[in-house]
Amino acid sequence: MTGRKAQLADSAQIIETAHAMADAARRAVLPFFRHGDLVADNKDAAGFDPVTEGDRAAERAMRALLAERRPEDAILGEEYGTTEGTSGLTWVLDPVDGTRGFLSGTPTWGVLIALSDESGPLYGIVDQPYIGERFEGGLGQARVVGPQGEAKLVTRGPRDLQDCILFTTFPELGSADEAAAFRAVSDRVQLTRYGMDCYAYALLAAGQIDLVIEAGLNAYDIQGPMAVIEAAGGIVTDWKGGPAHMGGRVLAAANAAQHKAALDILSDWP
Amino acid sequence: MTGRKAQLADSAQIIETAHAMADAARRAVLPFFRHGDLVADNKDAAGFDPVTEGDRAAERAMRALLAERRPEDAILGEEYGTTEGTSGLTWVLDPVDGTRGFLSGTPTWGVLIALSDESGPLYGIVDQPYIGERFEGGLGQARVVGPQGEAKLVTRGPRDLQDCILFTTFPELGSADEAAAFRAVSDRVQLTRYGMDCYAYALLAAGQIDLVIEAGLNAYDIQGPMAVIEAAGGIVTDWKGGPAHMGGRVLAAANAAQHKAALDILSDWP
Repeated sequence: MTGRKAQLADSAQIIETAHAMADAARRAVLPFFRHGDLVADNKDAAGFDPVTEGDRAAERAMRALLAERRPEDAILGEEYGTTEGTSGLTWVLDPVDGTRGFLSGTPTWGVLIALSDESGPLYGIVDQPYIGERFEGGLGQARVVGPQGEAKLVTRGPRDLQDCILFTTFPELGSADEAAAFRAVSDRVQLTRYGMDCYAYALLAAGQIDLVIEAGLNAYDIQGPMAVIEAAGGIVTDWKGGPAHMGGRVLAAANAAQHKAALDILSDWP
Repeated sequence: MTGRKAQLADSAQIIETAHAMADAARRAVLPFFRHGDLVADNKDAAGFDPVTEGDRAAERAMRALLAERRPEDAILGEEYGTTEGTSGLTWVLDPVDGTRGFLSGTPTWGVLIALSDESGPLYGIVDQPYIGERFEGGLGQARVVGPQGEAKLVTRGPRDLQDCILFTTFPELGSADEAAAFRAVSDRVQLTRYGMDCYAYALLAAGQIDLVIEAGLNAYDIQGPMAVIEAAGGIVTDWKGGPAHMGGRVLAAANAAQHKAALDILSDWP
């Protein structure tokens, strides 16, 4: 944890840089959102792909800021891969998490930013550019700023599984075993909802829901949300209770009680 | 259609009243959204129910405006039932469509307003108070005003079913037959998404998606969205191609091509 302590001196500049990155990503990606089809179908015969272009433009904007302000840090981004660094810190970037939601016009995709070391994320942002809503957590922060102003992020208190709200994006998630494990939890909760992409993690950090369960994630899908959830008092692990920051099967819970109840079921599956 | 022609003289006042109602509903319902749990769990031992209270407050606010401005019209509202009128017109109100989404903190529930005669809605609004986004259609209007400004609403052009985006709120929709019929369409499209409540109809009107299929709706769930979709060029019927404004099984399509393709499948089921 020495490395982690050493970062604290840098906190203000890290946070300022992360917000500048999220601002730049918003400006870069919004022109591609609900583009074309709003007035007429896209007629570009060359097969213009607004999502890929939006993704790339947003990641380039974030990388340009890092090159200027923090060239010593490494970068892992969904679109442009890995850039080596010397600081022991890595910016983990998903410029558009929830591509299918983005393509459908839903307002629940997000720009994900994390600053991480080898043990996981120290700080993260989940930003929803269309709503203009930003969730951040870590390095002493745990807040959301959005259309209704600013609020502290605090996860829900403990409650029984039968009173829990569970989210996942796709009802057909993962392998047959993974889907069965998910269903075993879903059958026990009060309410299961779908389709929110990274926004579900933000809702968990904001104290609105109890559990998010997903499979097949990449590191850049989870590190931003993980930092925000942990800062708000939640727990993020894999389905056996181990580290989740490298992706794969992820269980995010508002509280130790909800986490244990879901883990007791999920860990029974291969 | 004589009655419909007669309304045109009134259009400006109808539209102004509907927007005033949507504004009043926003003010009434937003204090209940993400209430309590954002900072700490709700400790009210009396079992305070923010959704029911939010629903009622929003419907009361809309009814108060109608009593003042258009006492001659009837009202059908989810919370307070039917109020008789003398004009042959009825305001059909759902103060919070998507209660489970509201309870979970998602930004995709809505306030639904329609002005209808016996043949269906003449004008409607789908309003998302948290985002500050309002879709309206009918009486010469077809537009959205939201965080990115104003845009005209035009549904997608014709496309093959295999290229379509389909939405429904609950993957477990309706009866076994209804679920099977839905699945038969879902198996043929490019992408199926869940969980958006009335926001899916707004996305269809905005040219983002091709189909919404639901079952078990009430009149107040569909009349607002129906007016907006029809004004944007879309088609809303039941699963046999008949009228949908009284609710039940609803098929909303961007275009005649998508409507026919889905109807050909749905109408095969009992």
